[in-house]
Amino acid sequence: MMQPAAAELDIHLRILASKPDSSAAQVTPDVVLGDYTSLEELRGAAEGADAITFEHEHVPNKHSATLIDAGFNVQPQPTALIYAQDKLKMREKLAALGAPVPRFAAIDSVADARAFFDAVDGRVCLKARRGGYDGKGVWFPTSENCYELVSELLEAGTPLMAEEKVDLTRELSILVARRPSGEAKVWPITQSRQENGICAEAIAPAPGLAPELAQQASELGLSIAESLGVTGVLAVELFAFDGPEGEEISVNELAMRPHNTGHWTQDGCVTSQFEQHLRAVLDLPLGAVDTLAPVTVMANVLGADKDPAMPMPDRVREVMQRYPQAKIHLYGKDHRPGRKIGHVNVTGDSTDETLSIARQAAHFLVHATWA
Amino acid sequence: MMQPAAAELDIHLRILASKPDSSAAQVTPDVVLGDYTSLEELRGAAEGADAITFEHEHVPNKHSATLIDAGFNVQPQPTALIYAQDKLKMREKLAALGAPVPRFAAIDSVADARAFFDAVDGRVCLKARRGGYDGKGVWFPTSENCYELVSELLEAGTPLMAEEKVDLTRELSILVARRPSGEAKVWPITQSRQENGICAEAIAPAPGLAPELAQQASELGLSIAESLGVTGVLAVELFAFDGPEGEEISVNELAMRPHNTGHWTQDGCVTSQFEQHLRAVLDLPLGAVDTLAPVTVMANVLGADKDPAMPMPDRVREVMQRYPQAKIHLYGKDHRPGRKIGHVNVTGDSTDETLSIARQAAHFLVHATWA
Repeated sequence: MMQPAAAELDIHLRILASKPDSSAAQVTPDVVLGDYTSLEELRGAAEGADAITFEHEHVPNKHSATLIDAGFNVQPQPTALIYAQDKLKMREKLAALGAPVPRFAAIDSVADARAFFDAVDGRVCLKARRGGYDGKGVWFPTSENCYELVSELLEAGTPLMAEEKVDLTRELSILVARRPSGEAKVWPITQSRQENGICAEAIAPAPGLAPELAQQASELGLSIAESLGVTGVLAVELFAFDGPEGEEISVNELAMRPHNTGHWTQDGCVTSQFEQHLRAVLDLPLGAVDTLAPVTVMANVLGADKDPAMPMPDRVREVMQRYPQAKIHLYGKDHRPGRKIGHVNVTGDSTDETLSIARQAAHFLVHATWA
Repeated sequence: MMQPAAAELDIHLRILASKPDSSAAQVTPDVVLGDYTSLEELRGAAEGADAITFEHEHVPNKHSATLIDAGFNVQPQPTALIYAQDKLKMREKLAALGAPVPRFAAIDSVADARAFFDAVDGRVCLKARRGGYDGKGVWFPTSENCYELVSELLEAGTPLMAEEKVDLTRELSILVARRPSGEAKVWPITQSRQENGICAEAIAPAPGLAPELAQQASELGLSIAESLGVTGVLAVELFAFDGPEGEEISVNELAMRPHNTGHWTQDGCVTSQFEQHLRAVLDLPLGAVDTLAPVTVMANVLGADKDPAMPMPDRVREVMQRYPQAKIHLYGKDHRPGRKIGHVNVTGDSTDETLSIARQAAHFLVHATWA
């Protein structure tokens, strides 16, 4: 999704893709086929580039460090990226910064788990320190299975941490872009809703968010971006919960790349997160983050358990027919249950109506039926 | 500029380009190199396509007709396209439809020219019937040079027509999209300003346009699109002038493709003319044409007489720094004096301020100085 923004700005994008039919390779002329875990293939693709960036956080940091030592301009740098890769390091760093985080602990033994389980009255969220996403790598153990689960995971070599489970009322997201030279901008705070750990929808600006809390969240995002030395787009996923004096927030996760909760910016903002990421990693001045409508809703198109008989192009036609205002974004991906294969953005004046249109449109693209 | 829209909608775009470094070829993965005047090369590029369309009107109609006879789906069809190619045919057709057009005549001899010159009191605009654009192929003869000019052009084999010169107060543009199955939508009427026959700026919606005249123009655009069987995007360029009862319009030119006066829709509208053109020629339901801001201004970036020493990427950086709200669109074209090498869109609340920003931004991209 960076390629359309790159094309308009005459930025030449070369992508390293694992397969010729990967989403980005379908729409980008300059494709290098290779494996991002191979230093030599990374280096080959990077040769001559003004900047090197990622669409996920799984490029090995040792390779990035080697490239940086060899004079390549890698953004974001592994010194920042580590906090999006290792949840324990992230928690420790954010706690040290005074950011609101749930109680947490490293879990290196069943004894650690037992101690934390007791300390938080069994309200435990267990996480793999690395590699989890979309609800994977997260467990909510009970007193019955907690120690067995921890012992199994540790024996399987999964480094673990635990957090106090938050009684969340909703999820919010801070989206920030920051340049190596320091300029940073934050989009309006977004509300998101997850289903089975996967983002289903995002609404921006987050409805009913108190201006003071929105301000606090924006400053938190900017402060994290600066303190961690993030470059490019940073998403700070938040839990919102009821505190003694109203809605409060704590940090859930960090992502250092354009993020699902920021897809609404493609159609609802002067500058999309994809254009902004390119500007940021190239250390170009950042674009305006003003919204283009009172509300923008993004609804994900997630592969159904069984792909409907109606082919996707016909589903697209039906949605276009019923909702001329729906902005359909497809990734050129084959169907797989639960797989993100596209999203729909809708701008409007009313949250309820805009949400309803985006939901219906995404539902039809998934199921070929109206909800 | 269709490629970003195609990418988002998972529409596979194959382009026929004359050179590997042509604008479209730089940003499109599937490029066939060839010559659009060669039937065989057209056919080769068209093989397997759901629809075939153009970004200019110069593909020979006989080739399009041959492709249609062979079962290819060419949109728009030559039966419509002829009215964007031959100005006399266009005038005759529009006059027959009752559309407002200036007085006109075919000029096949110096005697024709003499008669028309007298009939309109010397207020003559002489036009090549075919091939003119951006002020080329248009002459304003005087009594001194009129007959010599006509005789020279006719001897050179240029088919001519003449129109009564309009005392225009401004230029407007109607932008319509129409599907083969009949659905059509019209964007808000746009005002444009030409310099030396080349579009310099467009403002949408056209400032101060009476709602009745806007309505009349919109209906005119829809009526022309339907009567001529246009598919895809149609631009109807209008002259506005002072009539006895206020502002009036007459048709200047037709273009059957995404048009310079519609570039503002990329950033100022729910559906851009490029996405809409793709939808229209594929006979997909058309997208909403609601605006995203009270006013959107487009300013063209036209190559200066002498290209500034500051490289374009540095000019872009300066504009980004001063105007974070400016949407810069570059075509990846080398400098040539007067050549369209990009444009800038700016959305805003105030026409004056938005226009000023767009002008300044485009001026800097051209001259590397602020106006």
